Amino acid sequence: MEGQVSIVGTGNVAYALAHAFKKAGIKIHGIYGRNEDKALQLSKQLGLASISLESLAFSNVVIIAVSDHAIVEVSQLIPAGPVVVHTSGSVAMSDLKTDKPGVFYPLQTFSHTRNVDFSAIPICIEGTEKEVRILAEKISDKVYNIPSLQRKKLHLAAVMVNNFSNHLYAKAAKYLTEEGLDFEMLLPLISETADKLGQMKPDEAQTGPAKREDQDVIREHLNILSEDPELAKLYRIFTDSIIAHGKKL
Amino acid sequence: MEGQVSIVGTGNVAYALAHAFKKAGIKIHGIYGRNEDKALQLSKQLGLASISLESLAFSNVVIIAVSDHAIVEVSQLIPAGPVVVHTSGSVAMSDLKTDKPGVFYPLQTFSHTRNVDFSAIPICIEGTEKEVRILAEKISDKVYNIPSLQRKKLHLAAVMVNNFSNHLYAKAAKYLTEEGLDFEMLLPLISETADKLGQMKPDEAQTGPAKREDQDVIREHLNILSEDPELAKLYRIFTDSIIAHGKKL
Repeated sequence: MEGQVSIVGTGNVAYALAHAFKKAGIKIHGIYGRNEDKALQLSKQLGLASISLESLAFSNVVIIAVSDHAIVEVSQLIPAGPVVVHTSGSVAMSDLKTDKPGVFYPLQTFSHTRNVDFSAIPICIEGTEKEVRILAEKISDKVYNIPSLQRKKLHLAAVMVNNFSNHLYAKAAKYLTEEGLDFEMLLPLISETADKLGQMKPDEAQTGPAKREDQDVIREHLNILSEDPELAKLYRIFTDSIIAHGKKL
Repeated sequence: MEGQVSIVGTGNVAYALAHAFKKAGIKIHGIYGRNEDKALQLSKQLGLASISLESLAFSNVVIIAVSDHAIVEVSQLIPAGPVVVHTSGSVAMSDLKTDKPGVFYPLQTFSHTRNVDFSAIPICIEGTEKEVRILAEKISDKVYNIPSLQRKKLHLAAVMVNNFSNHLYAKAAKYLTEEGLDFEMLLPLISETADKLGQMKPDEAQTGPAKREDQDVIREHLNILSEDPELAKLYRIFTDSIIAHGKKL
């Protein structure tokens, strides 16, 4: 039964992948989770079976979608037979304790409450087992062969544009709330900043006081931030970095 | 003729506003620019007249959409009569040399090549002249009365979420290009990171190695970045800041 897949894990990635496979008409053997309650709950939510560790042997591909630290240990528990892949950006394929290893790394951030369109999500695969590519191509139009070290670099860049940007949003939200202003006012700007990149490179999209080296505005912003040394430090670092980056273009 | 407006300036904000006013059926008297060629070009593009400084007197509202440094000087040249507003996040209303001042600050980033949907863009207005609010409400559903100091704080937060995030995109793009990887692979992630905020707060949306305090991944990322001290520094600062921020939640 080509394409028959099982999922190990009950977190956001497990949910997102199970949802995408179901939508693509791929037969899902079941979901296994060490926390039986959670596995049962997720399986129910998706109209799937919660299965035992032993029965993973009856799948073509087992996808380990657990936290990075648990991947190696979990891979040891999986019965021989299926191709075993993990979904992590930072764990080497060779860490998997299996004779049919692979990687299936979707380059996206997943939340339980959001269903994302998988067809546009890049899936970075690794390994020689053809089942991995077949599976990936059934849910995404963007499947890339990426070896472990390159995948780690992609993950690092993903951390920068996702976690670090989101931290800027968090800092801005905290700041505005403290000043009695509404963070929601920034949402159209945040969307447009992201959407622009479909049409132009980030270097072309850059605007603002640092890009213009507008010292008056920079000085005033730092003055406004004088009682918030952490934010002032971030502001200074970015301003200097934007100016230095501009000179190298 | 209520709502009749002229625009001074030929940059991205001038273009975006003229386009939005036209779309909303507002009669635009014309566009004035010190650079006559540019003013003529922009006017043609929008099917409008390029007008003289003197004839600005025949508008109800004159919108100064020039760079921050030129606003005060330009405001002195405008003949008496119309309400005179600027579109800047960082210039105080009281800097305008006019007896009918106002502010008309759209909280968005504008590029010549992109037409944005103005109805969702917050417009921060200031001043007692009723024409300003009437005009703003004709193009946007989100009109806010924001005094100068609060507007500067919004602008500062906008710099953080727009310019600083975009700088992270630029740094990630440079890094991936140098590593032979394609920055475009990150675009779905960048979009989703922004879009998530329509549903959850940035603090709830945060994920990643710093949030999890995953020292193994953090160490490996810093190791990968050992030949790029500037990026390694940014990585360290964000990681520390995300960890500290998480402890305060």
